[in-house]
Amino acid sequence: MSSNTTLEQNQPMRLSYGLAAINKGDRLVPWAFDRRGLRSDDIAVKIQFCGVCHSDLHAIRGNSRFPLVPGHEMVGEVTEIGADVTKFQVGDAVVVGNIVDSCGKCPPCKSHEEPYCREFPTTTYDGIDRHDGSITRGGFSNEYVVKTDFVYHLPANLDPASVAPLVCAGVTTWSPLRHWHIGPGMTVGIVGIGGLGHIAIKFAHALGAHVVAFTTSEQKFAAALDLGADEAILSTDAELMAAQKYRFDFILDTVSNPHLLDPYLLALNLDGTLCCLGIPARMEFTPVLLTMGRRRLTSSGSAGTRETQEMLDFCSQHNISADVEVIAAADIDDGFDRLERGDVRYRLVIDMATLNPPAQE
Amino acid sequence: MSSNTTLEQNQPMRLSYGLAAINKGDRLVPWAFDRRGLRSDDIAVKIQFCGVCHSDLHAIRGNSRFPLVPGHEMVGEVTEIGADVTKFQVGDAVVVGNIVDSCGKCPPCKSHEEPYCREFPTTTYDGIDRHDGSITRGGFSNEYVVKTDFVYHLPANLDPASVAPLVCAGVTTWSPLRHWHIGPGMTVGIVGIGGLGHIAIKFAHALGAHVVAFTTSEQKFAAALDLGADEAILSTDAELMAAQKYRFDFILDTVSNPHLLDPYLLALNLDGTLCCLGIPARMEFTPVLLTMGRRRLTSSGSAGTRETQEMLDFCSQHNISADVEVIAAADIDDGFDRLERGDVRYRLVIDMATLNPPAQE
Repeated sequence: MSSNTTLEQNQPMRLSYGLAAINKGDRLVPWAFDRRGLRSDDIAVKIQFCGVCHSDLHAIRGNSRFPLVPGHEMVGEVTEIGADVTKFQVGDAVVVGNIVDSCGKCPPCKSHEEPYCREFPTTTYDGIDRHDGSITRGGFSNEYVVKTDFVYHLPANLDPASVAPLVCAGVTTWSPLRHWHIGPGMTVGIVGIGGLGHIAIKFAHALGAHVVAFTTSEQKFAAALDLGADEAILSTDAELMAAQKYRFDFILDTVSNPHLLDPYLLALNLDGTLCCLGIPARMEFTPVLLTMGRRRLTSSGSAGTRETQEMLDFCSQHNISADVEVIAAADIDDGFDRLERGDVRYRLVIDMATLNPPAQE
Repeated sequence: MSSNTTLEQNQPMRLSYGLAAINKGDRLVPWAFDRRGLRSDDIAVKIQFCGVCHSDLHAIRGNSRFPLVPGHEMVGEVTEIGADVTKFQVGDAVVVGNIVDSCGKCPPCKSHEEPYCREFPTTTYDGIDRHDGSITRGGFSNEYVVKTDFVYHLPANLDPASVAPLVCAGVTTWSPLRHWHIGPGMTVGIVGIGGLGHIAIKFAHALGAHVVAFTTSEQKFAAALDLGADEAILSTDAELMAAQKYRFDFILDTVSNPHLLDPYLLALNLDGTLCCLGIPARMEFTPVLLTMGRRRLTSSGSAGTRETQEMLDFCSQHNISADVEVIAAADIDDGFDRLERGDVRYRLVIDMATLNPPAQE
């Protein structure tokens, strides 16, 4: 245990409130809870916006620790800083994403690839704090307390609400695009034009690739081109899909529902890579398609701290952020319903100014 | 059609004989058949040795064109050369592998990656000749007629019988080891110590990697170390397998029977690659293991002409060849039985001097 423990014990707990699923599968309700007091390297953030991610829905319905406060795409303002904090000042506009701590000692952590921490990173909610063993509560709440290593300055030129999704949907697509050196001269496919896909199109285009969007909805063609795609292709058209053979250097598949990967593997050129961000129980594909073309099937976690900062800098320079719809806290359950039926363009963000504390009992 | 067609029509067919499965699943019997006459860029090779590959067995039992003459690991002597041939002379010792032609025009062919020919390469047997449409017959026979682009000089310092498997089992393991830049400082796993695996161990060791052999048989430990492995690990020991976590940069899985890939994926370090050479109907693994560790799952075909020559040069320099057992043609069915029950160390090679023509009817 570090010296922080002592400090933490000296700091009073902070009464917080947020939206919680009290039990597995529940609708969200206002809920009051304690957050830790600030450690020396912590800041407190008043949350202004928090994005709504598919994984929030999975967590609510999955084997999480309940009550569960979701939310891991936060933008807010620093309201208090720990004794040793120099990186931030009270009043700074900041961003917090889906990882808030890691072991800091393993090779991935040492190279700032914290999502791949060998002792597993501490997630923003439903994680276990590495110092006091408490369960982390997410950003669907009034404030968050977080170690500064995992906090970023909000790019001043971007709309705060639209930045929130960058630290989950954004980094999750940015990281593989960078890792696989996407750039000019490459043909890149983006499968799915949703929360992740729409940002991936913007990134791949800004990185200089020829971008092809695959979608099951012809209604999204115009939007895909607006986002920066050079082409849009209806993935349900088997003939058209077969005609894509050997075209792609890299395909980023952002679809989380199970689907057959063969058409995308076939679309890859020799030594091409299919990176699937959705993680189904099993991946359905024909193995010989990896052999013919020496193709690679891979996936990717979110980004580490260094790469997240790099992405935010890139977004600031290229004026890129998510296309968001800001909703009130009271509309979160309707928001989840819309998310489920694909009726969001492209990311919901909760305006936390609309969040009320739970009624006193 | 090229001008070769005319030439071919002018050259008399050559009465050949070999070992054939007359119908699907049959045992092999002596069989007489015609081979094409030499085209201007062809040579005729008197076959001295031909290796026995697992894929021969698959072809005999699969949906091949029958009668089927297997065999695609040949060493022999040039007995005749086409009008334009300068690369070989009569009497030269040569090697012929599992690909004997390709379109020559697509990007992979132009970069001498013929296994990935977009119009599919012509296989040594059960392929369709690109010029006359005839079905290719393999190396379990007295002679072979082949385009010189797909023929290699036998390294003079190596035992001919032990070179034969290099042009299938050898290139199939050499190519991915080279493609993934295996060398000093890397920890490489080789799964399975059979026809492919035993050569892969030799290669990975000679390339300078730290080599770990995975086997289901403790009886093979000593042999694995003799072949060049630094360690041998019993893959059925779950505890030991779990202890391999994060150790490997690259794992080459040579096992063709279906098996769960999870223990090998877990053994990979961040950004590690699992290359599976066996091609089951489906690959069994847990997708999130690709996400955690950004691991890659891939496969590989055999090698192109440039890489095959590179491998033969490397083998000559490092005195590497297959460990073989030479058998008589009459013992081929017993050989297949042994192959099936894993009772071969490590490759059977038929001495074609023992092949008799079929009895006259």
